[in-house]
Amino acid sequence: LLERFLESVAARVGDVEILSGAACAQRYRDPFQLFVDGPPPPAALRPRSVDEVRVIVREANACGVALWPISRGENLGYGGAAPAEEGTVVLDLARMNRILEVNVPDAFCLVEPGVSFIDLFDRLERDGLPLWLSVPGYGLGSVAGNALERGVGNSPYGDHAAQICGLEVVLGDGELLRTGMGALPGSGMWQRHRSPLGPRLDELFLQSGYGIVTKLGLWLMPEPEASAAVEAEIESRESLAGAIDALTRLKRAGVVQDSPVVASYLTQAALHSTRAEWGPPGAALSGEAEGRLRAALGLGWWNARVRVYGPPEVVDLGVARAEHAFAGVPGCTVRVSRWRAGEPMARAHRGLPTAEGLANRNWCGPHGAHIDLAVGLPLSGAEATRYAFFVSETMAAADLDYHAAFYLRDRHILNVVQILFDQADSAMCQVVDAVYFRLIEDAARRGFGLHRAPTRYRAAAMAAYDFGDGAMRRVRERLKRALDPNAVLSPGKDGLG
Amino acid sequence: LLERFLESVAARVGDVEILSGAACAQRYRDPFQLFVDGPPPPAALRPRSVDEVRVIVREANACGVALWPISRGENLGYGGAAPAEEGTVVLDLARMNRILEVNVPDAFCLVEPGVSFIDLFDRLERDGLPLWLSVPGYGLGSVAGNALERGVGNSPYGDHAAQICGLEVVLGDGELLRTGMGALPGSGMWQRHRSPLGPRLDELFLQSGYGIVTKLGLWLMPEPEASAAVEAEIESRESLAGAIDALTRLKRAGVVQDSPVVASYLTQAALHSTRAEWGPPGAALSGEAEGRLRAALGLGWWNARVRVYGPPEVVDLGVARAEHAFAGVPGCTVRVSRWRAGEPMARAHRGLPTAEGLANRNWCGPHGAHIDLAVGLPLSGAEATRYAFFVSETMAAADLDYHAAFYLRDRHILNVVQILFDQADSAMCQVVDAVYFRLIEDAARRGFGLHRAPTRYRAAAMAAYDFGDGAMRRVRERLKRALDPNAVLSPGKDGLG
Repeated sequence: LLERFLESVAARVGDVEILSGAACAQRYRDPFQLFVDGPPPPAALRPRSVDEVRVIVREANACGVALWPISRGENLGYGGAAPAEEGTVVLDLARMNRILEVNVPDAFCLVEPGVSFIDLFDRLERDGLPLWLSVPGYGLGSVAGNALERGVGNSPYGDHAAQICGLEVVLGDGELLRTGMGALPGSGMWQRHRSPLGPRLDELFLQSGYGIVTKLGLWLMPEPEASAAVEAEIESRESLAGAIDALTRLKRAGVVQDSPVVASYLTQAALHSTRAEWGPPGAALSGEAEGRLRAALGLGWWNARVRVYGPPEVVDLGVARAEHAFAGVPGCTVRVSRWRAGEPMARAHRGLPTAEGLANRNWCGPHGAHIDLAVGLPLSGAEATRYAFFVSETMAAADLDYHAAFYLRDRHILNVVQILFDQADSAMCQVVDAVYFRLIEDAARRGFGLHRAPTRYRAAAMAAYDFGDGAMRRVRERLKRALDPNAVLSPGKDGLG
Repeated sequence: LLERFLESVAARVGDVEILSGAACAQRYRDPFQLFVDGPPPPAALRPRSVDEVRVIVREANACGVALWPISRGENLGYGGAAPAEEGTVVLDLARMNRILEVNVPDAFCLVEPGVSFIDLFDRLERDGLPLWLSVPGYGLGSVAGNALERGVGNSPYGDHAAQICGLEVVLGDGELLRTGMGALPGSGMWQRHRSPLGPRLDELFLQSGYGIVTKLGLWLMPEPEASAAVEAEIESRESLAGAIDALTRLKRAGVVQDSPVVASYLTQAALHSTRAEWGPPGAALSGEAEGRLRAALGLGWWNARVRVYGPPEVVDLGVARAEHAFAGVPGCTVRVSRWRAGEPMARAHRGLPTAEGLANRNWCGPHGAHIDLAVGLPLSGAEATRYAFFVSETMAAADLDYHAAFYLRDRHILNVVQILFDQADSAMCQVVDAVYFRLIEDAARRGFGLHRAPTRYRAAAMAAYDFGDGAMRRVRERLKRALDPNAVLSPGKDGLG
């Protein structure tokens, strides 16, 4: 069947690249996998256009072959490019890499899934466009894929999924849908106005296996008149609650539009050094090692950052309020950097995508990797601290280092935990795996929802969403049958198991 | 079948109220209907609880009876409480009117569909809670229903649908779903964190016939430290473009969080007077009558308002910038009102729900009514003006008065047009009907999407969303079959015709 499928695709889609064997195995794996779970995908298809995608999907239906669509395959820490189930053919959209529109007055873009953050940034630079990106840690990832997988930055546009405005989607049977105003032929409003008459459908295609997004509209941040970054080194691990509560008050006062972030020292240390420089393997870093590390790299136990944007007077006020907020946190050193329109751009202000975020994979050495967990917590210093201490102690007990960032959103905290490990250490991999399952179970017990998890853990994480004996799961199964009746797309992707 | 259904419901749901005959006909009609389209609904059911709703839905499936769920039935201008199709039983949720939670630190509420804006406001007042509402023109409407039907206010929380966080829904076959973190049993995060693992489902239940929303979480606005309203009377009809462009620049500068609004003089005049005071019936108001009216009521041709919120310094800056913006618009008089925390509350600041918005129905006399159209336009003075002039001239040619408000959103303008008419004048009703169909056709030609329309016009308005030979319509039909397999809910509601 697979052969018939590939032959048939090759015959109908002249321009498609077909990979198999070693080339496919090498490229479409999870570089951060804990275990070799099964054989590599049997083949990968790299189309150039939505028409080719539709033909491929129709042939997949005809031949009963499952597809695993990826944008650029850089969903690192959450499963990479690897299909969840054996025998699934990768549909790699990286060659569909056109930036179809960048609009300055209304501050949006329309991109194909192969466009990376660096591609989009380069376009803005080349044309001198006054639009800022919100970027995740790793700039080689897909702009569209990142938004669809609920990636985050900490600019005011840092909830990337929330910036989506208008999708083009190939459904599981090849039907081509444009959402929102895209359904009005020739409309100029597709990336400007989200709400059609009747239900909006965009959200159906986030982290789901219902369709393949082939175009995505995304709102960008207009360049402000001025901005400032207020960064604080916070000495004590115990000051987390104070820092979060201070930033929460700041955010509620309405002078700060971004998601202030508080991150453990390891988030920086792992980018700029390796674990071996500080302590022996096989045990969590000692207090003494932690002290040496922080002194050498100039880091607080927690490091916080809040940015303000707007007219200079608003920025000044925001800086003053932020300084005042941090002044109430014991053992806190504050640094301010400012920018005004016309000045050269400093990294701390404008979102600059780089590959630097990948550097933390080296923390545990040349076979280092990480798996990540994103969980929503209450916007409360006490509750966030209780959770942070539980996770860090759970990890320490398993000889793992605690690597976490807390993004303060309007009504919750997005807590991203990365577990850094050594893929060459199979005992460590076993431990990491057990810890991850334990964290899933614990979050469910607390009523905190995971909303990102590596492919391997999605079914377990999804199991917690169990109200009404699994009503959400049953509803998603119905939607799956409605939109992908032959279950051709992304088997195992949405955590239905 | 209907009788068997009602008997069966009565037997199983002791507490339900069942209305039929004249009581039902009187209560569940569209008070603003243009024509008597058919017989009134045969019956109405008024349950008290979600369990009762589920029993009713299951019986409806068993008996093949269709239901028309309404929250409070006050969707005035868009069809009121009346079912779209003959023989549909009204499911009136007004008795489910509990405010289940109001949370001050995180600024949200959880309400049942029967809770009105006035109910919620009274609760905030009674308990002295520092939360502000964003209110539509008519305060007796349902908080939940208004958000689900894409109602608007012009506070920073004025896109009511965008404030939804977490739903409880009874699907077409009686399945009970809680969306988002509501799917985590016992979670405290339901109204705080929107994104579950996998696709979000909330948006499916906006303006759709897929399920019955029985609980809705809504974000409210925390009381700011200060606020100000800057109101401008703009003399000339031709100054619309200048006013919109000035407000757009203001909004893009990032000092204004709400949706500035520009409204034609009639929006105020129709609240405070009747048409007969100014001119003879049967022709649009003359320029002379318009001048007399505006002088008597102190109105510009256009009247604009922008509000700023935040720390006093930010509010001062916003006021200064708004005054500067309006100074560039010819023939413009500006009035500023300010408020600071601790001062008594002025109507212009805090959202105060009233029944006053209903007063404009009297414009055309004791049998006055209106039907409304909500359309998304580009954020451009020139384009908005072109559209406004087309609509007003189309209406004038049909001897109708132009009543419109332009809400400036981030990347589009929401234009709400109300057509005020006399239900006792059957010739006028014919004309209004023809004009409405003409406006639908014209909007489609321009690529502007209607996202609210009265029940009577939904199929026509939906027909414009025709990309891919009706892909969106086909997808919605699939979703309908998946979530309401026996098509029990809201036949005709989502414009599928």
